[in-house]
Amino acid sequence: MTTNHDQFLSRAGAQMKESAIRRMGSILASGRDIISFAPGYPAPETFPWEEFADIAAELLASRDAGVLQYGPTRGYRPLLDTIAAITEHRGIKTTREELLITTGSQQGLDLVARVLIDPGDVILVELPTYTGAITAFLNAQATMVGVRQEADGIDLLSLDATYERVRREGRRVKFLYLVPNFQNPTGLLIGLDKRQRLLDWAMRRDVLIVEDDPYRELYFEDSATEADVRPVKVDDRDGRVIYLSSFSKTLAPGFRVAWITAPPPLAAKLEMAKQAEDLLTGSLDQRLIYEACRRGVLQRQLPILRAHYQHKRDVMERALRRELGTTVSWPTPRGGFFLWLTLPAAIDADRMIPRAIEHGVVYVAGEAFYVNGEGHNTLRLSFSAPTPERIEAGVARLAITLRDEQAALATAAAAEAPEAS
Amino acid sequence: MTTNHDQFLSRAGAQMKESAIRRMGSILASGRDIISFAPGYPAPETFPWEEFADIAAELLASRDAGVLQYGPTRGYRPLLDTIAAITEHRGIKTTREELLITTGSQQGLDLVARVLIDPGDVILVELPTYTGAITAFLNAQATMVGVRQEADGIDLLSLDATYERVRREGRRVKFLYLVPNFQNPTGLLIGLDKRQRLLDWAMRRDVLIVEDDPYRELYFEDSATEADVRPVKVDDRDGRVIYLSSFSKTLAPGFRVAWITAPPPLAAKLEMAKQAEDLLTGSLDQRLIYEACRRGVLQRQLPILRAHYQHKRDVMERALRRELGTTVSWPTPRGGFFLWLTLPAAIDADRMIPRAIEHGVVYVAGEAFYVNGEGHNTLRLSFSAPTPERIEAGVARLAITLRDEQAALATAAAAEAPEAS
Repeated sequence: MTTNHDQFLSRAGAQMKESAIRRMGSILASGRDIISFAPGYPAPETFPWEEFADIAAELLASRDAGVLQYGPTRGYRPLLDTIAAITEHRGIKTTREELLITTGSQQGLDLVARVLIDPGDVILVELPTYTGAITAFLNAQATMVGVRQEADGIDLLSLDATYERVRREGRRVKFLYLVPNFQNPTGLLIGLDKRQRLLDWAMRRDVLIVEDDPYRELYFEDSATEADVRPVKVDDRDGRVIYLSSFSKTLAPGFRVAWITAPPPLAAKLEMAKQAEDLLTGSLDQRLIYEACRRGVLQRQLPILRAHYQHKRDVMERALRRELGTTVSWPTPRGGFFLWLTLPAAIDADRMIPRAIEHGVVYVAGEAFYVNGEGHNTLRLSFSAPTPERIEAGVARLAITLRDEQAALATAAAAEAPEAS
Repeated sequence: MTTNHDQFLSRAGAQMKESAIRRMGSILASGRDIISFAPGYPAPETFPWEEFADIAAELLASRDAGVLQYGPTRGYRPLLDTIAAITEHRGIKTTREELLITTGSQQGLDLVARVLIDPGDVILVELPTYTGAITAFLNAQATMVGVRQEADGIDLLSLDATYERVRREGRRVKFLYLVPNFQNPTGLLIGLDKRQRLLDWAMRRDVLIVEDDPYRELYFEDSATEADVRPVKVDDRDGRVIYLSSFSKTLAPGFRVAWITAPPPLAAKLEMAKQAEDLLTGSLDQRLIYEACRRGVLQRQLPILRAHYQHKRDVMERALRRELGTTVSWPTPRGGFFLWLTLPAAIDADRMIPRAIEHGVVYVAGEAFYVNGEGHNTLRLSFSAPTPERIEAGVARLAITLRDEQAALATAAAAEAPEAS
């Protein structure tokens, strides 16, 4: 007798779906020469290999049990203190009671979802927004409602109108999820004035803000400064903002070390949730990150990374202008990993993927980032991981793909058109 | 205006509590000389430090991007193949579709809970059982119902009677959670015949079994063999058993590398849940574990670990007999990390903790392992981490604690007794 497994699934389990970005991963594993603009991977040539090798050698020679042993759920204490100093540098006063180390920011989002969301609670998100957050909130059975963005980030009038509509429907808004700096997927930066107004709005409406900030160190010095990436959390006087950040984009993502700064009562709950989720973040990983901070490796990396990704952004923009001219449009990223492309309205980026693969290039179709089913003619390009040469070649392949798709659509339209009499 | 954070908590978040074992951790961090029998930590002197140092040096010298980069949620493919070979050696045929690497077995339990449990679903557990499982299932809002154990593990008559009672109440049983080998906390081993009957029962009642097997390699050769630790999963012909195991007790827990073997449709769902929970288990950690397996480090460790922990078990049993004689009783552990002590009925192990700390020793009070509020006069002693000398000294301190507690109880009883006339 074969077991019917479906009947055992929870409601959350039954609705889980494979992510769009993950499906891209399977295609890339196929071994063909495909230039991938899909996943937001940092550039491995920037990893400080030698420094990590030295640190690992010293840590493992020390025979300090804590390097390989279980440890506290909150995190390795010296690393917590280092993170407090990092957030302080960003303008956020942080006590140890407010801090929790997480196994990547993805875990941070998941913990926030578990501690705050009951099935049916409404979470407000940007249109478009990070798919990993969408999935984490969906697994807690949230109802996500999207709010339109302008060039300087989320639209405040639309935000409040959305809030009022949700409340009129008798539903509860738990929090607003924001990626204020070089947003995944659009690369947009929320304006400074708007940040303050967002905080005022959250206080007035008694809503929390979950501020996800993995890219803030990666501002491009030709068009952004440290002043532009000031976290909303800086001005949070009454414990309104939960702030997430990470070492994945600045040191390396394979360590899975990130953190949450939250008001103490919420940090305590997030810790309890983490305790049941994975007990602790890897001990060796935490020590490696701590030593990389202590020895100045992180500080030395930052200007290198800013220049590295700015250059790749330049290469991608030049290639796009050359290959696609005004057929497509995008906001110039002033930092981060992503360029957000809008195609002619008739093109469906998701349906175009097989043709893109045929031509040896992939991207993530934009609709994965929309909670309202929009975005068919948008796509996300990551310029972070490929080399400049591969970026050039990949954009050329994308241009061919797009021209082929337009030609195919024109042919199909002609075939369907009534014959001339 | 200070934010009232409680009003934002989910039902799961509101009910989360700090674990008993964790509270012990805070006491130990106080810096006093306390001998801890509380956490189930492996002995750090057994860690293969040199081998890990060599492996780390090679991995980081390779500059293979995958060592520090994001990677597939399922896990590093060569490690998945290695794990398939390990489970095959345990008698479990495993295809890649059935395997998922998890961030410790704690994450495995949490993923199982998310994918299978809806609020109010009944999970059957042993009395007592592993607290980490209790917490993970509780966070999914399960109702846990306990089943008594005998010397050879869970009582089958009681199991079926419990099942029938739950069904009569109109509730759904999703799975039975078992730790068949050297159970945490009792150290008990389920008899071979009983394993087969448990599987038959699960098929007859259409219930899944979640088999948690972190200690199976740590059988003590004076009283157990590899034949005694045969997983229930070995005889699972129809996808009834979800099997969890880990490298935490055999290589090192700081890497957070464990795995689940589950029927393919469930493994696919568990992978989707993991994707939203932490994207992937640490890349460097997975490579280190893979190399330790490939180079034979794991195989060389196993006999060393068996002898190491058997010796510590001997030391603890001898000390207990010498210091406490027949005042207490326990089943002799034939493997694993734990010894389960039953105190005189009048003693409350939890209330005795302050006195134990005063005398410089800690343990975990047994009631944390009971889902039905029993176990007040029981406690769990871990003999795995302390040195033999510390085990001797700690048991002596425990004996003084217990005698003081008994004397205090006698005094209190005398004070309350009616005066002789």
